[in-house]
Amino acid sequence: MTRTPEDVSAAMHARDDVAHVLGIEIGDVAVDEATVRMTVTKAMTNGLDVCHGGLIFTLADTAMAHASNSNDARSFSTTASIEWVQAATVGDELVATCRATARRGRNTVYDIEVRRGTDEVLIALLRGQTLTVGGAVAI
Amino acid sequence: MTRTPEDVSAAMHARDDVAHVLGIEIGDVAVDEATVRMTVTKAMTNGLDVCHGGLIFTLADTAMAHASNSNDARSFSTTASIEWVQAATVGDELVATCRATARRGRNTVYDIEVRRGTDEVLIALLRGQTLTVGGAVAI
Amino acid sequence: MTRTPEDVSAAMHARDDVAHVLGIEIGDVAVDEATVRMTVTKAMTNGLDVCHGGLIFTLADTAMAHASNSNDARSFSTTASIEWVQAATVGDELVATCRATARRGRNTVYDIEVRRGTDEVLIALLRGQTLTVGGAVAI
Amino acid sequence: MTRTPEDVSAAMHARDDVAHVLGIEIGDVAVDEATVRMTVTKAMTNGLDVCHGGLIFTLADTAMAHASNSNDARSFSTTASIEWVQAATVGDELVATCRATARRGRNTVYDIEVRRGTDEVLIALLRGQTLTVGGAVAI
Repeated sequence: MTRTPEDVSAAMHARDDVAHVLGIEIGDVAVDEATVRMTVTKAMTNGLDVCHGGLIFTLADTAMAHASNSNDARSFSTTASIEWVQAATVGDELVATCRATARRGRNTVYDIEVRRGTDEVLIALLRGQTLTVGGAVAI
Repeated sequence: MTRTPEDVSAAMHARDDVAHVLGIEIGDVAVDEATVRMTVTKAMTNGLDVCHGGLIFTLADTAMAHASNSNDARSFSTTASIEWVQAATVGDELVATCRATARRGRNTVYDIEVRRGTDEVLIALLRGQTLTVGGAVAI
Repeated sequence: MTRTPEDVSAAMHARDDVAHVLGIEIGDVAVDEATVRMTVTKAMTNGLDVCHGGLIFTLADTAMAHASNSNDARSFSTTASIEWVQAATVGDELVATCRATARRGRNTVYDIEVRRGTDEVLIALLRGQTLTVGGAVAI
Repeated sequence: MTRTPEDVSAAMHARDDVAHVLGIEIGDVAVDEATVRMTVTKAMTNGLDVCHGGLIFTLADTAMAHASNSNDARSFSTTASIEWVQAATVGDELVATCRATARRGRNTVYDIEVRRGTDEVLIALLRGQTLTVGGAVAI
């Protein structure tokens, strides 16, 4: 019995301690696509008073994890790059949207946009690759 | 009066909430160089029971922040890419070492290696760029 | 008197020896956008009998050069990454389409797709950054 | 009968039309390592009178091809990123040195430095990945 992308995503999210610590919420998921959200808190800022770039990356990487495991074949990220476009500050809701843009054997390329929820200003762009190794995702 | 890299780093670290949440410790810092450490806890794992790749990225990005601000001229990251080489699990101490590898005007390229503390196994490689905008780093 | 993107592009192309050696043709150009074309010849293959990945990169980088200089303010590439998705072989016409996807001060992020002309199969994806230093482009 | 890295490299180079057009010469090769050279000619310049960034990339990618096929197991590049650090001009001899920096299954990460031959000034940094599919390299 095949699980839906929503089922797989819910199972992953239940086990994802980092997502809970950061208050990440899972939005729409579909085959090779996922949207996740996070609101910047004081605990997410760095020494320069803006959201730590690593946590923006983590949000986007979480979107990629949900998109790449959506068909219930275990996948993991092998490489990713980020362009930080605009700083995010406390109170900003960040929305990361991920979609597959290319496939080459068991490697898939994903593009992720992170935008501010209120006005869709672009915060960061990511491009990553995953490798599908198969086997069911965490039950 | 110029502050030393250690002074700047201590001032940044004092304000870096993310570093405290993750238990990141600052090791040696020098001009354009920094070493930082983090021990993987259960709260840092993802749905696949290994350290979330975004937090490995965050550790390395923190090393780059300390290296790039070491001469007390405010700098921020503009782009970075990561290669995840080996999974890290609960209890692993991760050590991120950053050094500058190229400079082009106000842009500096940094290379960061993340290794497991006990046996120096390579966990991830990052390459990032920073832009120096000047002004003293957080006082 | 401001030159149009087409004027700037024509001036650049006239001086671009590499474009002539590779038979690159300039298609539509507009502010922050450009399309260029190249047909793979035997001289462009590598030891594995497919188009050398470096030349696919060069085609895409040429599209980025035309897009980023389109407003007649001299710009150059600082960094770029490529994902090779599908091999190209002798006789394939490759079409590289470039558009700006983000801007941060004088740095612009461009996304370039390289597709096979006949069937639009995706050959490669590039993302690059340019720095605008200003001054008129080659006259 | 296993071929040496030098044998494999010579076989690849004999079939590499691009290397001949660009006058690329193969230097030392060893398992997972290669050095290649190219002298910038007028035909390699772009509209801004400096060596086309795509050809610097091509030189480095050629070094990666020789390093990654050195053990006679067919490999190809899947992704690569370049940082252009310093312009190269007509007459410059460029030396690209490639070495493996990480391995993850059949994927290998390579770092390539491109330096000016006369004074070792850094021209560009590349990091790429290859996938080993096996089978003997071009005979």
